[in-house]
Amino acid sequence: MSGNRSKLVRRRTSSDKACRAFKVIGPDLLAILVLAFPLNLLHAQEARVSEATESCLPCHASVTPGIVADWEKSLHSEMTPADAVVKEKLGRRVSADSIPDDLKTTTVGCAECHNMNPEKHRDSFEHGGYQVHTVVTPEDCAACHPTERSQYEKNIMSYAHINLTNNPVYHSLITSINGIQDFDGSSTTLTDPDEETDFESCLYCHGTEVMVQGTTSRETVLGEMEFPLLSGWPNQGVGRINPDGSMGSCAACHTRHQFSIQMARKPYTCSECHKGPDVPAYKVYQVSKHGNIFSSLGKEWDFDAVPWVVGRSFTAPTCAACHVSLLTNSSDEVVAQRSHQMNDRLWWRIFGVIYAHPHPVSPNTATILNQAGLPLPTELSGEPAADYLIDEDEMNTRRQTMQTVCVSCHSSQWVENQFARFENTIRTTNEMTLTATKILSTAWEKGVAVGLPQRANIFDEAIEKKWVEQWLFFANSTRFASAMSGADYGVFANGRWYMSKNIQEMHDWLRFKLQGGTEKK
Amino acid sequence: MSGNRSKLVRRRTSSDKACRAFKVIGPDLLAILVLAFPLNLLHAQEARVSEATESCLPCHASVTPGIVADWEKSLHSEMTPADAVVKEKLGRRVSADSIPDDLKTTTVGCAECHNMNPEKHRDSFEHGGYQVHTVVTPEDCAACHPTERSQYEKNIMSYAHINLTNNPVYHSLITSINGIQDFDGSSTTLTDPDEETDFESCLYCHGTEVMVQGTTSRETVLGEMEFPLLSGWPNQGVGRINPDGSMGSCAACHTRHQFSIQMARKPYTCSECHKGPDVPAYKVYQVSKHGNIFSSLGKEWDFDAVPWVVGRSFTAPTCAACHVSLLTNSSDEVVAQRSHQMNDRLWWRIFGVIYAHPHPVSPNTATILNQAGLPLPTELSGEPAADYLIDEDEMNTRRQTMQTVCVSCHSSQWVENQFARFENTIRTTNEMTLTATKILSTAWEKGVAVGLPQRANIFDEAIEKKWVEQWLFFANSTRFASAMSGADYGVFANGRWYMSKNIQEMHDWLRFKLQGGTEKK
Amino acid sequence: MSGNRSKLVRRRTSSDKACRAFKVIGPDLLAILVLAFPLNLLHAQEARVSEATESCLPCHASVTPGIVADWEKSLHSEMTPADAVVKEKLGRRVSADSIPDDLKTTTVGCAECHNMNPEKHRDSFEHGGYQVHTVVTPEDCAACHPTERSQYEKNIMSYAHINLTNNPVYHSLITSINGIQDFDGSSTTLTDPDEETDFESCLYCHGTEVMVQGTTSRETVLGEMEFPLLSGWPNQGVGRINPDGSMGSCAACHTRHQFSIQMARKPYTCSECHKGPDVPAYKVYQVSKHGNIFSSLGKEWDFDAVPWVVGRSFTAPTCAACHVSLLTNSSDEVVAQRSHQMNDRLWWRIFGVIYAHPHPVSPNTATILNQAGLPLPTELSGEPAADYLIDEDEMNTRRQTMQTVCVSCHSSQWVENQFARFENTIRTTNEMTLTATKILSTAWEKGVAVGLPQRANIFDEAIEKKWVEQWLFFANSTRFASAMSGADYGVFANGRWYMSKNIQEMHDWLRFKLQGGTEKK
Repeated sequence: MSGNRSKLVRRRTSSDKACRAFKVIGPDLLAILVLAFPLNLLHAQEARVSEATESCLPCHASVTPGIVADWEKSLHSEMTPADAVVKEKLGRRVSADSIPDDLKTTTVGCAECHNMNPEKHRDSFEHGGYQVHTVVTPEDCAACHPTERSQYEKNIMSYAHINLTNNPVYHSLITSINGIQDFDGSSTTLTDPDEETDFESCLYCHGTEVMVQGTTSRETVLGEMEFPLLSGWPNQGVGRINPDGSMGSCAACHTRHQFSIQMARKPYTCSECHKGPDVPAYKVYQVSKHGNIFSSLGKEWDFDAVPWVVGRSFTAPTCAACHVSLLTNSSDEVVAQRSHQMNDRLWWRIFGVIYAHPHPVSPNTATILNQAGLPLPTELSGEPAADYLIDEDEMNTRRQTMQTVCVSCHSSQWVENQFARFENTIRTTNEMTLTATKILSTAWEKGVAVGLPQRANIFDEAIEKKWVEQWLFFANSTRFASAMSGADYGVFANGRWYMSKNIQEMHDWLRFKLQGGTEKK
Repeated sequence: MSGNRSKLVRRRTSSDKACRAFKVIGPDLLAILVLAFPLNLLHAQEARVSEATESCLPCHASVTPGIVADWEKSLHSEMTPADAVVKEKLGRRVSADSIPDDLKTTTVGCAECHNMNPEKHRDSFEHGGYQVHTVVTPEDCAACHPTERSQYEKNIMSYAHINLTNNPVYHSLITSINGIQDFDGSSTTLTDPDEETDFESCLYCHGTEVMVQGTTSRETVLGEMEFPLLSGWPNQGVGRINPDGSMGSCAACHTRHQFSIQMARKPYTCSECHKGPDVPAYKVYQVSKHGNIFSSLGKEWDFDAVPWVVGRSFTAPTCAACHVSLLTNSSDEVVAQRSHQMNDRLWWRIFGVIYAHPHPVSPNTATILNQAGLPLPTELSGEPAADYLIDEDEMNTRRQTMQTVCVSCHSSQWVENQFARFENTIRTTNEMTLTATKILSTAWEKGVAVGLPQRANIFDEAIEKKWVEQWLFFANSTRFASAMSGADYGVFANGRWYMSKNIQEMHDWLRFKLQGGTEKK
Repeated sequence: MSGNRSKLVRRRTSSDKACRAFKVIGPDLLAILVLAFPLNLLHAQEARVSEATESCLPCHASVTPGIVADWEKSLHSEMTPADAVVKEKLGRRVSADSIPDDLKTTTVGCAECHNMNPEKHRDSFEHGGYQVHTVVTPEDCAACHPTERSQYEKNIMSYAHINLTNNPVYHSLITSINGIQDFDGSSTTLTDPDEETDFESCLYCHGTEVMVQGTTSRETVLGEMEFPLLSGWPNQGVGRINPDGSMGSCAACHTRHQFSIQMARKPYTCSECHKGPDVPAYKVYQVSKHGNIFSSLGKEWDFDAVPWVVGRSFTAPTCAACHVSLLTNSSDEVVAQRSHQMNDRLWWRIFGVIYAHPHPVSPNTATILNQAGLPLPTELSGEPAADYLIDEDEMNTRRQTMQTVCVSCHSSQWVENQFARFENTIRTTNEMTLTATKILSTAWEKGVAVGLPQRANIFDEAIEKKWVEQWLFFANSTRFASAMSGADYGVFANGRWYMSKNIQEMHDWLRFKLQGGTEKK
């Protein structure tokens, strides 16, 4: 496996002349050079690109042409924050009331983000005469988008790394999935996973902790240069722990370097992390009427409009429409406020947990303890750990906030009946999970599996993994299918059929174990 | 779970003035009001919208802006039936020879559909001075589209509700899937599902029975108003039983309120109900050459043209092209007639049944009885219940109707070989199902499972559910993959690999049960 | 099942007049006819269509209108090879230095491909005065595209038929999947599959052997005509054995008859064969950031540009961008050379094999023998059959070729860390496969399953099929998810969750078999 960290020497190209010139003359003289340099990418922005960004572009247009070309298609490259901040309220894409003077009058280029707050960034390093950092963070973006940053801090997603890795129960789930198993001829053993495996699996979506591990020297078109060595990198997970101490990655949804609002509003972005059987939101959406309308007619919609006008800009919701975007009707009346908190309109927590339960009060769920002393939001019997969860009043408020979106296109009766079905399904799926839990508990009690009573990992045996699928895949998928009316997914794709079959298989297994194979029914 | 039927009080908005004015002055004076009211949505249609529809729009543009904006994008809002009916034959989208006088000269707006046939509609109620109903039905649409209604009555889809719920065997399948299971420490129990569960699962696609359960009073921007209380609502299933006694929902495919032919012709519409493992038509299409061409090049096609011209409007079939649409060649010669019956070109019934068999004669399959006295179109051995099924002549006729579409782009040899493969696969998949049935029957006979001989539910035990998957998922998927040349799906995704594996697992289970675990092979 | 090879008599149409005229007057006079015939399809090309092609079009515009209309949209119908060959180097789509005289100055129509090399084509037959053949082959295409043909001969895909059917181990896998199983009341039996089944399953993608089985007479609009009878047809598999002895089908990716480069560059084309759980490249791509960018923003990309300019033509790679296409940056500098060999930038072989291993030296893998005497590239312990596989130097070269594409948009550190994760996952997935193999080997040794030691089929029992899924589905999916950063697929969709669960289930089964059901843990 040696040799896999080969030094990449980039192609020397004609535009390398600009890079080498930069090295000789330094950033102070580069503005002059750039004006003389026939780099067509710079034309459109030449008047308004900052001096610092101008010093980045000639080299990076050569060594990472994709990034520069992508950024050139962004609104960041076309507009200054000063112009953005004076837009009328509903049409504004920046939430800051005022913009720092040094950012106001140039477009938002490389330097405006990568040179921001160097004193806070442990990954900051000297590069071409500037202190730059690799990992741009919500704290950096907050210079112009502070409301979104503040809302996102209350979003459970911002704690996705912490909530997973700081919770001993979930940690044992990771170990049982990602660890290496061996077989000695009679038993299996389980070794903890290496961190590279965690980085590319669970933590891809939940976010890694990006840490500076030292520096490394690389040969570049400008000769030998020093760069920080990062671990947990690359990553754009929603709960990433950043070198400036902040949590999250705006690029999870607002993909670098075009930062297209169009892209964030399309369901494909959400599907990066919400498609698998543990959280099949996208698959359910696809077979819903809403998803069908998006797939069939969405190419004619206006995904760039701010605000997003119901019926005019689009004729069926995407994920963003219900959960995030500022929506208005044709009379400029607000249908839904923009929210990067998201859970302000989510009252049940329906996935990633053994039982659906009212949403936690705090986005930090690693501090929850149920009465049995486990860091779980319910008991194993399904009873909610109520002290940590929102109460009925807050549930009602959130439910109504969501319904306000629905009634833009549906009658009150339609919406109420739909929500009643969903809450009925919360109940029935929890009941089916309880049944699976009873079977597993019996197996533990009778000693044919080892789990809670034996203080062993509760996720590592075959029967335990069937139990996990009951709630993590099947109950969960059924709830998503109910919430979003994607019936085709909730019956046979991964829903009620499997809920019902899995219980029978668990029961069949238990009878084998307790009675042997040869009994009659 | 209380509080989930909260009263939704809609936002009071500037356009509420129009609503309140309506209440004061009544429908008779509203036309005057509307002309004075600066509601830009009405401009395009003002001359031709009916008076009744004019009385709907001001309020509903405010309370359900999405619906109104969607309808505004429809052909219904742009054209009168009188103009539609005089189009030359191949280009006509209405099938009526003449249109009722009161519908002729206005566009097709809210009132034209929702006020139609009030005497037949048990859900009709007084609203703003008119008798309106919520649930628009095929009978309502038939005013302009009678041929489609008549054809659809012969489509097995129109009986989808009845065929499922009136058949005791299928009913026991629903119970075993949707019912609540419990575990008492040694056995599992099964309780019948509640109807809300059925509504959002099986009946989402098959259709609910929509019934009027009384009335309810709601606070609206116009004050307290009375509305009928509907059960089984919302629903747009293909076999919906409507409050006017008709069956089906045109909106299943012709999604409200844009009623876009483009949308009905795209495969996403079919995928709402034909994507899961029980009927994976869409998944197979996606990996077929046809599906690839649609995905890659479809954005340049003309999905609105009537008739739909092979090669010019589109270069590969979607579901609608083969099964529904009127197709012509570039010389205006008919390649295929429009069909809302669909089974006029389907000769084998390949899904949702234990064995593939010739199509039933009647779309009402609940009346079929096999020789064993079960309401099934074949014996458990696979022998067809021939009296209820089409004969070989009719099969040949339908096969040739379908082939007429294929030969637009393929040589006769290509088509014949492809169809021969498909019919070979009908045979082999039925053989594999028979093998699984033999294993299950042995289990029943030996008493290690309880089923037909014991007059018990044949779908509720683990081994029975494996048998169900053999035909409902695997044999079925293999046939779809064969029919539509989506090989990638028919081998490893959910096809032959699982057919072959499932038999071995059923056999393995039976040996465990009969011999215990410790025997040698 | 009789009647399924019905004679298709095509509709007689107005343009049949042209066909019948053709019959009467023969090809020599047809040019005159065509000029007089108001067939609008011919207008654009009339000056440049060859005489031979002109004799095809009138009939085929009537009998197969879809093919003709599709071809009319192709570049082949718009341009002559003489014009194509003088394009400047990077923009050229033909690789021949010179074009045969008889092909130079007409567009590439029916006859240019279907009449090519008649002496080599066993499927050549007299048709309308010309020797034509049905199956167009890479050898035919090589008249203008010789480099692509030569590269493709080194592509392992060109041997996809041979590598599957000439390898006894893989052949026994096919038998176990496609064969018919029966049950006699105590044991199952397995009968070899018929070839129609193989044609539409494994060989759909791998390619059939197309053979001439005789001739058949068909009634056509021109009366009775003779055609060759082909077996293994239709097929466009990548390793198809053609009637001229060549291997492969360009139409697998360059779909007839539009031959759109746009289509070949879109991932849907690859998904025809690379979507199932055995090779889920497309599914992984869909949930990757790259796939999200394509889905969200791809409609604005230029898929027709040659060369394909990074950042300008597209902003995220599709399959073709990394594996096939000629890429340049905005300064016309080559980022990646066009490759139809593909494995010149693939160093690990990660799918379809028990263990991931260095790529084979020869595309013909049917000649490989491991030390145990099996035709496999590794031992059952995972040790590579090194003599047949590329060495570390070649692996490094290929790895760097691939990285050259990545660094267009990513920093060296990003790329190196990403590749290190991938190679770590090669190691961990191989370890997990070894564990599953140890469990199976124990079952064989203890006699509770029969396999290698008993010289029996190693794929046909339930426990063996679980072992197959360990590598063919789960290890494999995990590697794809790692390689392309589609984490959502690699954890719960079909990756690490199933790798870990499957080992526990295999172990659970073995304990049942060896100890019976009633032991305590």
